[in-house]
Amino acid sequence: MINHFCRTPLWEASRTLAAVAQGKVPADTVIRHATLVNVCTHELQENVDVAISQGRIALVGDASHCIGGETQVIEAGGQYLAPGFMDGHIHVESAMVGVGEYARAVIPHGTTGIFMDPHEICNVLGLEGVSCMAEDARRTPLKAMITTPSCVPAVPGFEDTGSAIGPEEIRRTMDWDSVVGLGEMMNFPGILSSDPRTHAIVGETLQAGKIVTGHYSMPETGPGLNAYIASGVRCCHESTRAEEALQKMRLGMYAMLREGSAWHDLHQVARSITEHAIDTRFAVLVSDDNHPHTLTAQGHLDHILRRALEEGIDPITAIQMVTINCAQCFQLDHELGSVAPGKCADLVLLRDLKTMEVTRVLIDGQTVARDGRLTVEMKPYTYPQWATGSMHIRDAITPETFRIPVQGGQVTVRVMEVASGRVDNRETQAVLPVTDGELRSDPSQDVLKAAVLERHHGTGKMGFGFVRGFQIQNGAMASTVAHDAHNLLVIGTNEEDMALAANTLVEAGGGMAVVQNGQVLGLVPLPIAGLMSPLPVDQVSAQVEQLEKAWEQIGCRMVSPFMTMALISLACLPELRLTDRGLVDCTRFCFVPLEVPEGAADSDFTNI
Amino acid sequence: MINHFCRTPLWEASRTLAAVAQGKVPADTVIRHATLVNVCTHELQENVDVAISQGRIALVGDASHCIGGETQVIEAGGQYLAPGFMDGHIHVESAMVGVGEYARAVIPHGTTGIFMDPHEICNVLGLEGVSCMAEDARRTPLKAMITTPSCVPAVPGFEDTGSAIGPEEIRRTMDWDSVVGLGEMMNFPGILSSDPRTHAIVGETLQAGKIVTGHYSMPETGPGLNAYIASGVRCCHESTRAEEALQKMRLGMYAMLREGSAWHDLHQVARSITEHAIDTRFAVLVSDDNHPHTLTAQGHLDHILRRALEEGIDPITAIQMVTINCAQCFQLDHELGSVAPGKCADLVLLRDLKTMEVTRVLIDGQTVARDGRLTVEMKPYTYPQWATGSMHIRDAITPETFRIPVQGGQVTVRVMEVASGRVDNRETQAVLPVTDGELRSDPSQDVLKAAVLERHHGTGKMGFGFVRGFQIQNGAMASTVAHDAHNLLVIGTNEEDMALAANTLVEAGGGMAVVQNGQVLGLVPLPIAGLMSPLPVDQVSAQVEQLEKAWEQIGCRMVSPFMTMALISLACLPELRLTDRGLVDCTRFCFVPLEVPEGAADSDFTNI
Repeated sequence: MINHFCRTPLWEASRTLAAVAQGKVPADTVIRHATLVNVCTHELQENVDVAISQGRIALVGDASHCIGGETQVIEAGGQYLAPGFMDGHIHVESAMVGVGEYARAVIPHGTTGIFMDPHEICNVLGLEGVSCMAEDARRTPLKAMITTPSCVPAVPGFEDTGSAIGPEEIRRTMDWDSVVGLGEMMNFPGILSSDPRTHAIVGETLQAGKIVTGHYSMPETGPGLNAYIASGVRCCHESTRAEEALQKMRLGMYAMLREGSAWHDLHQVARSITEHAIDTRFAVLVSDDNHPHTLTAQGHLDHILRRALEEGIDPITAIQMVTINCAQCFQLDHELGSVAPGKCADLVLLRDLKTMEVTRVLIDGQTVARDGRLTVEMKPYTYPQWATGSMHIRDAITPETFRIPVQGGQVTVRVMEVASGRVDNRETQAVLPVTDGELRSDPSQDVLKAAVLERHHGTGKMGFGFVRGFQIQNGAMASTVAHDAHNLLVIGTNEEDMALAANTLVEAGGGMAVVQNGQVLGLVPLPIAGLMSPLPVDQVSAQVEQLEKAWEQIGCRMVSPFMTMALISLACLPELRLTDRGLVDCTRFCFVPLEVPEGAADSDFTNI
Repeated sequence: MINHFCRTPLWEASRTLAAVAQGKVPADTVIRHATLVNVCTHELQENVDVAISQGRIALVGDASHCIGGETQVIEAGGQYLAPGFMDGHIHVESAMVGVGEYARAVIPHGTTGIFMDPHEICNVLGLEGVSCMAEDARRTPLKAMITTPSCVPAVPGFEDTGSAIGPEEIRRTMDWDSVVGLGEMMNFPGILSSDPRTHAIVGETLQAGKIVTGHYSMPETGPGLNAYIASGVRCCHESTRAEEALQKMRLGMYAMLREGSAWHDLHQVARSITEHAIDTRFAVLVSDDNHPHTLTAQGHLDHILRRALEEGIDPITAIQMVTINCAQCFQLDHELGSVAPGKCADLVLLRDLKTMEVTRVLIDGQTVARDGRLTVEMKPYTYPQWATGSMHIRDAITPETFRIPVQGGQVTVRVMEVASGRVDNRETQAVLPVTDGELRSDPSQDVLKAAVLERHHGTGKMGFGFVRGFQIQNGAMASTVAHDAHNLLVIGTNEEDMALAANTLVEAGGGMAVVQNGQVLGLVPLPIAGLMSPLPVDQVSAQVEQLEKAWEQIGCRMVSPFMTMALISLACLPELRLTDRGLVDCTRFCFVPLEVPEGAADSDFTNI
């Protein structure tokens, strides 16, 4: 696959590189006396220089003959030199900032490339929204490789989105310079059922010679997983058990081991490597979703590398998992992922291999960060007005909006039971009293009312459900970050606070809010598609921190509860989810009523 | 890169594969109870089944649910199942047969794919000749991936060839279905000197997103090797010392470790792996050149695997080196090189991992060989008449043709000193007596006269030299296999036998001949471009065996001396070579006179 992400194509740079390597033309930059983390051979090599020209590596070895009067010499002083880190699967929108601010946050942590799946903005604004993010990316040194969102809507027929992507749109984007493949194919039921449209989406990508990325969230690793991989899917980041990750690698699939802000899979899945003496070339480390506070407080891939070391993975293997293995997964290893002649000069200097502290980052041969700070200016980018006016709610929202009239004295309802730090949920039940002919939240059972309001086309569609696990006694939360359709999701103990939370976001153009007793305790305005803020990442991080405190204030003890909340509407994850069209049984893929029919409890709910 | 070598493109097969994996549609074929050589994870897995449909793998695991009434079940009975072997660098012409007969010879030994560089036929017949070989290949089950010859002529300006390839020809072939990259870039001086035309040849390949294969035969592994790799060359099969192979891998270049009929590099270069605890993903095993007798008597990659085991490489690593590593080198790992869902069902069954005895071979899911014999019929293919009439010698050849008139009583001449089993030679000298005003061979010093006659355009060009190392006392040999221009090369102790040997080949349309005292002792007619025979491989092998006996009969004790002879004209290998234009100093790349000027001996020949 041709890489459009380097400063100079190799075929334009090669004559100069050959001359520089031989000392006939001085290098632009020479890094001296580094300890090379050689990801090709899994070795440390001491006292290695790297000569750089045209944004590419001309020589690795002794580069003293490559230094001229104009050459910038960077003295590494024995520090560790590794290829720039790459995140093989990331949704920038989860950081609640645009690609520019995302780049500002992650580059100082050693990230030089990301494979981003902009399926959040695509659900809201379609391919035009994806184009905006590509344009936002172009002003940054970060190599932002796009995988075209494959599942917009995520589960067709079960939700309303702002846009829809089919095979024709996929084919069109495969010609985009910024596109390297297909975004996570979450519709594994469509793949497994040989659905022509789903296979055509994959097929258009394969025909273009590009990479299909995956999302197989079932624990099953037999016929289903085989069927999924046989259909052309090359990688998957959804393993939560070591056995799943191991089986994927055994079946020739790249196992992307995930450690994001809210999904801490690594403790389990690292065992696929540490407890088995296997060739690890099919293992990759990814973040999937990080909120801004994680990026500013903990870092990005440097943090995930530290976590990998804690789990017992050796440092060179871990670094291979964010460099050469990732590049090979995307068949971009001829350009990226190793410190070798001809490759893009995307490099990091590390103080040591224990803390993985990044002291300097180069992209295309230019120093772009030192000691934790970006050292280059980026041009400003403003998202267009149509991208910042995405709240299209049909009716005024009042407490009445959230009423669920029912009959009888009490009702057994289905409940989505969430757990901290997990992407899956469980379908359980609760018996709720009926008050004034209405179903209400019952904080004494930790059962809260949830609603999803369609916000893209002003249809007025709305779905109701109940959720357990947040342990909030009084208050409400609202979010337009509500995967993947990103309609307006509201949860609360009472209808008044629910209405206030929702209306607060309508006014803000989208975002996340926490409300109690008629007071807004926390607000993160996200006016770009209702997903991202135009503010700098540290300011957004501060707002999110304030929001987390507001969650705590109203009684929630979860890690990043707003991320767990945002998955309540994601109907491609098991077991029970809520969209603007209603409650979805995500194991059988059908709508189910809020109320459990009498006598159905025993037969329907084998998972309880 | 899109693979055009599979029976069904994945995007056409995926819906069926998904159904087969889940047992909804029966598999075409199921292999049961194999011990899987898992090249993805470097593991052995016992009791594994593989389900096959549409020529591709649908499932790896327990496939009992994939068996229907029409399914062919192959009981492996615990035998080892590995991906089909691939040779990453091979010149089919060296086997002296067309691709069809080559396939017949190697498939039973487990070879399912070759990356062939048809630069021999291209030097004689141009791209039209390459097309013939592609057509010959199409009738075989063997996946014959072509790398377009990059260096025709091998060393421009130093020899006359039948054809010339430039950047425009390279660009044109990159659209061919059968072409996956560029053939070995032997013109490393052109790369190192930043020659625009040489870099354009590489550049056209890179722009097409395809692979540039290499040939860097210098022991230098510093600035020169860096310059070569930085220019976009991805692999090299020319390492003869372990240090060279190791350095190439460290610089992110695929080190193709060679074990051909006449070049036995593995004993040395295997140490790059066995003496260093490195990641071996950049190591590949290749044959480069095999003559027919090696294929019929010893095998192909199975033989090289056995050699690898003898050198201390573990069997799974060795098998990775002819499967997944090779596929990753060519970025065809999404289709070839592993036993995994979606991949082409190119598979071998091995009796054990010691003898590497191949009991069954499948290509695209079809059994194509069992117990050493091809089990499928191939359509006949006849090379066109213009391909079998390639001897265009201007003048009738007589003993007079080989006269070298000189003055004086004795003359110091440059001598090409060859050694058995080595591709390089040494430049030495000899003092020859002048008899009747002529320079003649002097068998007492093992110094034989050599001549190269242009045979493509009837120009009458002819170059003379002397060679040492064959130890022949009486007789002559001629060959139209004379790398890479494949002019008519003649060596002998006397001019009469030289003329007979040459004329024998003119009559045969090309080939190899051994002559003594006016008798033809051995003849291998190679009428296809003067390089290949239309006969079955075992018959050609018998002819070659007879030829080798004839070499022995006239006093030569070398291993495959005709292969060593055929390199005498290859001006891209050190140190001294002979073309139809004269003697070439292949270190400085200039013509040198046959006679050493008086007083020049000390200063010019530092290598002696």
